[in-house]
Order: sequence, then structure tokens, then C-alpha cells
Amino acid sequence: MNVKVIKIGENLLAENDKIAGANAELLRHNGIASFNVMGTPGAGKTALLESLIPELNRKFPCAVIEGDIAGTFDSERLKKLGIPIVQINTAGACHLEAFMLQKGLEHLSLGGLKILFVENVGNLVCPAEFTLGIMKNIIVSSVTEGDDKPAKYPLMYKISHLCVLNKTDLLDLSTFSPEKFNAYAKEINPALEIIPVSAKTGENIDKIVTWITNAVRVV
Amino acid sequence: MNVKVIKIGENLLAENDKIAGANAELLRHNGIASFNVMGTPGAGKTALLESLIPELNRKFPCAVIEGDIAGTFDSERLKKLGIPIVQINTAGACHLEAFMLQKGLEHLSLGGLKILFVENVGNLVCPAEFTLGIMKNIIVSSVTEGDDKPAKYPLMYKISHLCVLNKTDLLDLSTFSPEKFNAYAKEINPALEIIPVSAKTGENIDKIVTWITNAVRVV
Repeated sequence: MNVKVIKIGENLLAENDKIAGANAELLRHNGIASFNVMGTPGAGKTALLESLIPELNRKFPCAVIEGDIAGTFDSERLKKLGIPIVQINTAGACHLEAFMLQKGLEHLSLGGLKILFVENVGNLVCPAEFTLGIMKNIIVSSVTEGDDKPAKYPLMYKISHLCVLNKTDLLDLSTFSPEKFNAYAKEINPALEIIPVSAKTGENIDKIVTWITNAVRVV
Repeated sequence: MNVKVIKIGENLLAENDKIAGANAELLRHNGIASFNVMGTPGAGKTALLESLIPELNRKFPCAVIEGDIAGTFDSERLKKLGIPIVQINTAGACHLEAFMLQKGLEHLSLGGLKILFVENVGNLVCPAEFTLGIMKNIIVSSVTEGDDKPAKYPLMYKISHLCVLNKTDLLDLSTFSPEKFNAYAKEINPALEIIPVSAKTGENIDKIVTWITNAVRVV
């Protein structure tokens, strides 16, 4: 029988980190602030981008690289924003890797861009394990997922700079405790900023716009 | 530098399948019907078990093997049901594998058990790739995740026997289209049974009890 053997291990992660370093350098060289948007399927990553980009794009030209296992659902949704979008299909892989982002960047005109959003594959686990060379990690959580998620999926909350807690419009209908969620998240990552929002009603979206604007200004 | 190299590939999946076969045989030998409960973090897998087990356990003694990356949150929730529970911590791995279930089964008294629920790690991707030797795959989806998930995460819906569509109590507050969801799911897997429920209000939980009871009767 023909057995395909793929060697992985530390050398694979080292290779990923090397490409991630090159991605970071390329983005820095072009003065682009970049954000790796992660979260479980249905947390509202695309909805958040739909709310943020019209605000941000007026001052800071935006682009999006969309990571999905299959299909172009999220790119189709974002098309109407009139910004450059590149779709990466991972063909089964549950996360983006640095070489995938590298390929994505080849399809964007970087000159003139100010903000790059990368929407990772919907998954609370593996995307946290692969650095891409992106400046800031944003974890999108949602009220309907329950308040114990930071404790159950600690790495994601540890590596994130901002936690967008989405779907606050459903807070009254759920048993979600913002105090518990904050305590779990801060225990793992005391520096994590947590901003509750509703991408649906627009509540606090201005605060995310401010957070991103501040990050853009230091690039 | 010390480089650890782990060889994976088809031989790894073949080894997993071999152990899965042994798990299946062990469960069959003991007359135990088994259910692999999968879904994204926060879909309501534990809440579903909390609703189902008190009903089922009266006739069919139940046990649960809980898979989590870290912690014992879900086992703590299920403790009050008074059934045997084994917690597996995957230490970072985003899915259960057959050898983990094998270890879990060693900690259960199988004689007299009729139903085994395995609650997999919250993830719509990787758990679908590793067979465990479990009789039926149940995907727990939820209204708040959006109606496009079967199209975006096709393998999970392809390998499942039952789709429990949870959180129907939030249907009126969302843009979720049950027709779209069903169409996407059926396109991938025409044999997939889809039952909308609310683990919160108890709506249609009796239908899941019936579905599981029918599966138990053919073991």
C-alpha cells in the first residue's frame, strides 16, 4: 500500500513562524495595520466586519482576507462594502497558516492600504496555535456561547489583544454572566481588553472603531 | 537544537481507525448504544445532555465521556444527574481520538450500561475527521450560529446521522432561515434527520428521546 507520510512537529511550527515573520515585515513596510479576527463559527466575525468597515474605510482604506474551509459565503456578504477581498479556501484545514496568508497578500495591492482584516476559520482552538504575522489578535465571542468559554479554550484568550463580546442584544434572554466571563478571561490574560457589543443593533461598535483607530495610528 | 519529529499521515488515521474498530466491538459486545455529540463551542451540547439524560436514564442506564481541552466545567454540570461520568482532557488537542475514548472506556463499568454519550471538544471541523467507534454521530447546531453553517463546514454534516437544531426559542429574534439551513444540510447529506429543539424550554426534546430510544432498540 502507498503510504503518504508527512513529517510535522517543531520544525513545521518554526517554518510557519519564519513565513509569519516575512508577512509581518511586508505589512510593516507598507504601513498596514493588521487584525486577525478569530472566533467560533457563528460568533459574528463577518457581522462585526460589516459594521466596522464602512466607518473605518472612510479614513483608512481597508481590505479583507477571508479564510474558510469551503465556499465564499463571507466574501459574498462583504462584497457590497466595495473594498478588496481575497478568499482563501483551506480545503479542510481548520485554521489559516502563515503560508496561506502569504499567498493571500500576493493578490492584494498593498500600496495605499491602511487596514487589513484577516477573518480566520471559525474555530476556538487551532487558529490560536498558528501565528500569521498579524499585528493584533481579536477574539469575537458571543453571549449565546455561554460565559465559560475563556476557561474552556484558554489559549485563544491568552494570545488575544481584544475580546469583542458580541450579541449583547440577547443578554436579557440568556443566563450569561458578564462578570463570570470577564473574571475567567482576565485570569488567563489580565491585559485583555473586553468590549461588549451588538453587531446587530450597533451598540458599542464606535468603541471598536476607536480601538482599531488607535492601533492604526501607532503603525 | 533538539527537534521532535512526529510522523503523521494515512498511517495515523489507519491506527485511529483500528482502535475505533476495537471500541465499536467492545461497545457492541456489551450491548451499549453510543452517541458522539459534536458541535461548535456553546451550541448547547451539555444543555442537550442535561435535558435528555433524566428522561432516558429511567429505562436505559446512561454514562457520559466528556472531552474538553482543559477543565471539568461540563462534567461538573452533569454530576447532578447521578450517572457515571469520565472527563478526558485533551491537553490542547481540538478533538477526541479513538485512543482517548479507549482510555475513557477503561474507567467505566460497562456491564449494565445501555447508553454512552461522548461529548466531543467544541469544534465544527476536526472531530468529524476522527472516527471513535461510536454508533451514531449527532451534530448540535444552534439558531444563533446562522443558517449557512452546513455549507461552510460540510464534513460535519455529511458524517452525522442526526442534526439537533438548538435554541429555537431565539428564532423570532434572529434572521436564521430554517428553510435555508435544511436545504444546505440536505444538499450535503440527504439522509440527515434534522430536529429543531430548545434545550432551554424543552420544546421537541421528546422527539430526540424517541430518536435515541429507537437507536437503542436496534443494538
